[in-house]
Amino acid sequence: MKTIKVGMIGYKFMGKAHSHAYRDIPLFFPKTIHPEMKMICGRNKDGVALASKQFGWGEYTTDWKSLLERDDIDLIDINAPSDAHKEIAIAAAQAGKHIFCEKPLALTLKDSREMLEIVEKAGVKHMVGFNYRFAPAVMLAKKLLDEGKLGDIYHFRAWFLQDWLVDPNFPLAWRLQKEIAGSGSHGDLGAHLIDLAHYLIGDMTEVIGLNETFIKERPVSTNMTGLSAMGSVSGEKSKVTVDDATLFLAKFDNGALGSFEATRFASGHRCTNSFEINGSKGSVIFDFERMNELQVYFTDDRDDVQGFRRVLATDPTHAYAENWWPPGHTIGYEHTFIHEMVELMEAFREDREPVPNFRDGVKCQQVLEAVDLSIEKRQWITISDI
Amino acid sequence: MKTIKVGMIGYKFMGKAHSHAYRDIPLFFPKTIHPEMKMICGRNKDGVALASKQFGWGEYTTDWKSLLERDDIDLIDINAPSDAHKEIAIAAAQAGKHIFCEKPLALTLKDSREMLEIVEKAGVKHMVGFNYRFAPAVMLAKKLLDEGKLGDIYHFRAWFLQDWLVDPNFPLAWRLQKEIAGSGSHGDLGAHLIDLAHYLIGDMTEVIGLNETFIKERPVSTNMTGLSAMGSVSGEKSKVTVDDATLFLAKFDNGALGSFEATRFASGHRCTNSFEINGSKGSVIFDFERMNELQVYFTDDRDDVQGFRRVLATDPTHAYAENWWPPGHTIGYEHTFIHEMVELMEAFREDREPVPNFRDGVKCQQVLEAVDLSIEKRQWITISDI
Amino acid sequence: MKTIKVGMIGYKFMGKAHSHAYRDIPLFFPKTIHPEMKMICGRNKDGVALASKQFGWGEYTTDWKSLLERDDIDLIDINAPSDAHKEIAIAAAQAGKHIFCEKPLALTLKDSREMLEIVEKAGVKHMVGFNYRFAPAVMLAKKLLDEGKLGDIYHFRAWFLQDWLVDPNFPLAWRLQKEIAGSGSHGDLGAHLIDLAHYLIGDMTEVIGLNETFIKERPVSTNMTGLSAMGSVSGEKSKVTVDDATLFLAKFDNGALGSFEATRFASGHRCTNSFEINGSKGSVIFDFERMNELQVYFTDDRDDVQGFRRVLATDPTHAYAENWWPPGHTIGYEHTFIHEMVELMEAFREDREPVPNFRDGVKCQQVLEAVDLSIEKRQWITISDI
Amino acid sequence: MKTIKVGMIGYKFMGKAHSHAYRDIPLFFPKTIHPEMKMICGRNKDGVALASKQFGWGEYTTDWKSLLERDDIDLIDINAPSDAHKEIAIAAAQAGKHIFCEKPLALTLKDSREMLEIVEKAGVKHMVGFNYRFAPAVMLAKKLLDEGKLGDIYHFRAWFLQDWLVDPNFPLAWRLQKEIAGSGSHGDLGAHLIDLAHYLIGDMTEVIGLNETFIKERPVSTNMTGLSAMGSVSGEKSKVTVDDATLFLAKFDNGALGSFEATRFASGHRCTNSFEINGSKGSVIFDFERMNELQVYFTDDRDDVQGFRRVLATDPTHAYAENWWPPGHTIGYEHTFIHEMVELMEAFREDREPVPNFRDGVKCQQVLEAVDLSIEKRQWITISDI
Repeated sequence: MKTIKVGMIGYKFMGKAHSHAYRDIPLFFPKTIHPEMKMICGRNKDGVALASKQFGWGEYTTDWKSLLERDDIDLIDINAPSDAHKEIAIAAAQAGKHIFCEKPLALTLKDSREMLEIVEKAGVKHMVGFNYRFAPAVMLAKKLLDEGKLGDIYHFRAWFLQDWLVDPNFPLAWRLQKEIAGSGSHGDLGAHLIDLAHYLIGDMTEVIGLNETFIKERPVSTNMTGLSAMGSVSGEKSKVTVDDATLFLAKFDNGALGSFEATRFASGHRCTNSFEINGSKGSVIFDFERMNELQVYFTDDRDDVQGFRRVLATDPTHAYAENWWPPGHTIGYEHTFIHEMVELMEAFREDREPVPNFRDGVKCQQVLEAVDLSIEKRQWITISDI
Repeated sequence: MKTIKVGMIGYKFMGKAHSHAYRDIPLFFPKTIHPEMKMICGRNKDGVALASKQFGWGEYTTDWKSLLERDDIDLIDINAPSDAHKEIAIAAAQAGKHIFCEKPLALTLKDSREMLEIVEKAGVKHMVGFNYRFAPAVMLAKKLLDEGKLGDIYHFRAWFLQDWLVDPNFPLAWRLQKEIAGSGSHGDLGAHLIDLAHYLIGDMTEVIGLNETFIKERPVSTNMTGLSAMGSVSGEKSKVTVDDATLFLAKFDNGALGSFEATRFASGHRCTNSFEINGSKGSVIFDFERMNELQVYFTDDRDDVQGFRRVLATDPTHAYAENWWPPGHTIGYEHTFIHEMVELMEAFREDREPVPNFRDGVKCQQVLEAVDLSIEKRQWITISDI
Repeated sequence: MKTIKVGMIGYKFMGKAHSHAYRDIPLFFPKTIHPEMKMICGRNKDGVALASKQFGWGEYTTDWKSLLERDDIDLIDINAPSDAHKEIAIAAAQAGKHIFCEKPLALTLKDSREMLEIVEKAGVKHMVGFNYRFAPAVMLAKKLLDEGKLGDIYHFRAWFLQDWLVDPNFPLAWRLQKEIAGSGSHGDLGAHLIDLAHYLIGDMTEVIGLNETFIKERPVSTNMTGLSAMGSVSGEKSKVTVDDATLFLAKFDNGALGSFEATRFASGHRCTNSFEINGSKGSVIFDFERMNELQVYFTDDRDDVQGFRRVLATDPTHAYAENWWPPGHTIGYEHTFIHEMVELMEAFREDREPVPNFRDGVKCQQVLEAVDLSIEKRQWITISDI
Repeated sequence: MKTIKVGMIGYKFMGKAHSHAYRDIPLFFPKTIHPEMKMICGRNKDGVALASKQFGWGEYTTDWKSLLERDDIDLIDINAPSDAHKEIAIAAAQAGKHIFCEKPLALTLKDSREMLEIVEKAGVKHMVGFNYRFAPAVMLAKKLLDEGKLGDIYHFRAWFLQDWLVDPNFPLAWRLQKEIAGSGSHGDLGAHLIDLAHYLIGDMTEVIGLNETFIKERPVSTNMTGLSAMGSVSGEKSKVTVDDATLFLAKFDNGALGSFEATRFASGHRCTNSFEINGSKGSVIFDFERMNELQVYFTDDRDDVQGFRRVLATDPTHAYAENWWPPGHTIGYEHTFIHEMVELMEAFREDREPVPNFRDGVKCQQVLEAVDLSIEKRQWITISDI
């Protein structure tokens, strides 16, 4: 069987997660197409050299354009900072490379639409990194929905709660700077909720939001990556230019009501990426901090034993579970990336579009911007208007 | 010690809960002023006669005005249907009677303001039935907030989820008719959340909402009371004139962001009256289905043992707990009413205003109407404007 | 309908709980026979006088024998200290009175057998206070078992964990003195587990146990009642003569294996009275700290949605629930006593034996003593041998 | 830095888990010594050839002795069936190889003692595969214990509940045959509990047990590995020669009481490997199905906010956590093996004994046999006597 030869741009948090996914596929998913880790690219030569060795790449470079010139690279994996996505993705498409791009596709809806247009014109495969779709418990929710087991859907409520910014002395990371990150908790965390809403419920028709930056200024730092690595902190402070929290209400095409909240100020919540769906025949609840579990309720259970079931999505019947361990032996965060990459490899194997792809990325961006616009204009925004 | 002589109007669900509270006070709270159950009133003679005997009242009547003429009645307890509150309360105040009125005070903000004005002018004591304040776990949250243990407050999110309307054949109860109930889940359930927000966080500055009536028509029924008693159901259907679900976003005076949801369409949730508060120093979570528990988190716990604590509010240190059972022996729904009535008796004993009172009822009504107006006008409404 | 006229001996913790149950029956269970609270008895005249007034009894006395001479008393409720049960119960039976006796029936198996013999000979009704049977969630477990929904039973494990003795300076309460209490955690807490085992699973064939008194001496106190009221503590210490914790293994007649643990040294557990049953078709888990809930699992649920359901036993279908509040509105500890007394009243109404009765009390005592004997002899004890 | 060259015997479930651990170390733990996957060995040539490729080994063989002759192999990893451990381990030690051996060390205490003696004499490093020690939440429990944060220990209760044998038609896997597996749930599951008890609490002094084989005969199968792979099932049945469930009580050296239960008949429990520790200053609860969490209780928390904290052991302060993902991003079952192998590599780096090692394996075997003996003899067995 042929392999897919990968060139990856970015070598920090996400670069590590993706590398691990590529490494694990032959071991746990031997029957899909295998990725070959050809070359990794980063701006800092020492950094990328070290990462190349640590992550197990064949070669490294500091010039991302060189990846596009290589005939022995099929797929470009973009997990560089968000402000670099557009240029790289467009160039990669034009070079005929298939593309995996981390979310968000771009800093603006306009840019992401342009990217979609170009990848479609180029006829390459494209995928976007909404990894939470790939938790088996989330996939179980999707299956129940698709089978109609939850009936007509009335409510979708979702909240992504973190607490790493509660300390006012936490420094001004790149994720807090609009020009690099594009957005704050809305684009970082809310984007995942919006994608899950699209995946599970469908399109929204209109939204109205509310946001806040609770801590207006923070100490300036250097060389920050990830959430925890802080670099050195200077005495001066600078302005936080993204939202600390964004909430919004939504109506869905199918008549359901939506409620969304993304915040980095929820003390006690390290990573509560949670949603609940209520339908006429049942409900489900998911919380990423217990990512192997889905709470499931059916209205047609016998009347004396109705209640939310704690389903551990580790049985052979659950998505991807047979590739892992026996029932009850749980998996973790990194497995969402492995499954994501398996989906991409399967798309190659079956020569079809991977899901989620740039269209999903654009749709997510559209809602993100609609919410921001609704906040700016203090009014409901119809999604199809933008 | 003197007693407080009570005349009560209403003898259904709430009449029973209040009667039980009056009966339990001498047993469990012997040191407060004791209520005397003088007379109960209801429109249906047989019904009220039966209730009088069952609940333990001294006398009964079908004419509520006769209660006001009696010198041996100090307090009028109004738990008749919502559309009757205003007339009775005003007449009671003008007759110099103290008043306990179930929520909602009235069907409109205007009416409730008129009621407040008159009770204040009359100089009588007045209380409104926001019973959920009186769960010891909720009172623990209040105590932690008042002590500053949660720091600056960033988020208040609250949801009151029930599922008794999910069945489209559930008949058109009085709670589904605007002319009697005034409102649907918003006024019935959302009102409690709004009151808890006022109690715990403070005033809101502006709101924007969204609501829906998922099932537009329902079978007509007769003689419905409570949630379950259904009377006979005819074949014809009639229009549901209240909301099935109402959500809204809010900003608080203190800068916190609020998110509220009240629905009767959340399959699997019998009575999830829940809130979460996130502050700079800690968080709390409450769920009425586990009403003896408060989840509590502190940011200054040692860094390796940070986590939400499941506090069972049944220790001697917790509100009202010493009047009940040993630690770990829980109490139930009806105890919120007992504590509520203890607060009223204590207000008599100490000759002070009970809390919550009609001012709290008016404030709640103000937010309810602001939300409805925001839905009608599709725009943010400033609370102080209405 | 006639009433049952009650004379009660004991006026502390249990006296209060029973009194409340009698008071609540006419209000919440109007269709059963109503108890009439004729006379209360206690050794301390001021104490019982106060209790009589507070609890709502018609008369009081310090002479329990006088209760037995009254023609207008049908039922003797014995909740005096354990060492007084035998004498009172026997005299009551001989006087032709029906008897409700708090657990333990007596301090020894021999005494309890004698009591059983005499009440049976006297032909009076007799009941014993194993109140935990009457939590609706426990009754749901029983129903599922009786219907065969759990299949063949393999495991019963139960633990009653409290923590009020962890403090070594907690004084030497009467519950820590063998001559009054008869036993420590074994007889106080373990007895409830054993009764639940009998109720839910059936008879045991053999047992072997292990116990410990972790804190050998404690400060002497005066006038202690209940768990929390401590009286004054003197400087001197005296020996603890009961067990702090008792564990045992058991085999059941039906082949199931049992594991039991009762302790007052489980920090963090105020009142974790919990059991789990595993059968070939399903399992249930109960924890008294969340007494309205039963976790229920069925092996024949569809393979992708198998999981423990959190059933809130507050729906109309659940035992006693329709007499209380709408679904999701929970009840508390005291309701177990109300249901217990309803069972007793129903036994009068239907002229049948109440359950649990002295036979259940004897069976419980038999296992308690078998366990103690197994500890003393360090060997397995066959239940039928003693 | 030098590497450790590994030869591994066994290529099924555990072989995969170990291989993955070796592969992940350079990526996530770059600073420790790296393992080199030199050669894998298995009895079936096609099987091992396939595994070698899939798992990423350099070479493969069907002759385990050939591994011992190679100079370029430092460490022998034994995860072949239990009945083969002894011969291989002894030969490996005599060949001067370091050894990692899966649990159980051997089928008997005598054999395991012989193995210990020989590895110690040979002066090689030896480690045994009690992987559950390496869950960060378990390591947090150990840390709290070592710091004295839980005070004097009163109780250790542990249960390992699975349900894969509840179906009576589940075939007779090798794990159900005494001559291969050595023991049933006792040796498979109970062994982990015993090791955790040793790790967390210390030595036991005496034990008494109880076991059962609920389903006496099962369909014969072929070629079974792991829990789920079943091969073809013939019509004939054969006798189950191991225990389905084993329970025992224990006393610890430090005075604590222990309760243990291992079963494969607990419907609804896929892999509930759980323990609770109660001490004078606090308690902890662990459940492997939520392996990232430790419930922690402290008696000296402020009296109104005492409760079990749900600590997510994913913060930088927790063991191994900084090598993984940001706080709240959980890890899974396989990570216990990675940490286990990191401990082994660290022992090489620091030239010290790895923990747990063969001494821990022997101690575990000693308790296993003491329990079996107590069942056979129906009496308490003193651990030091055997």
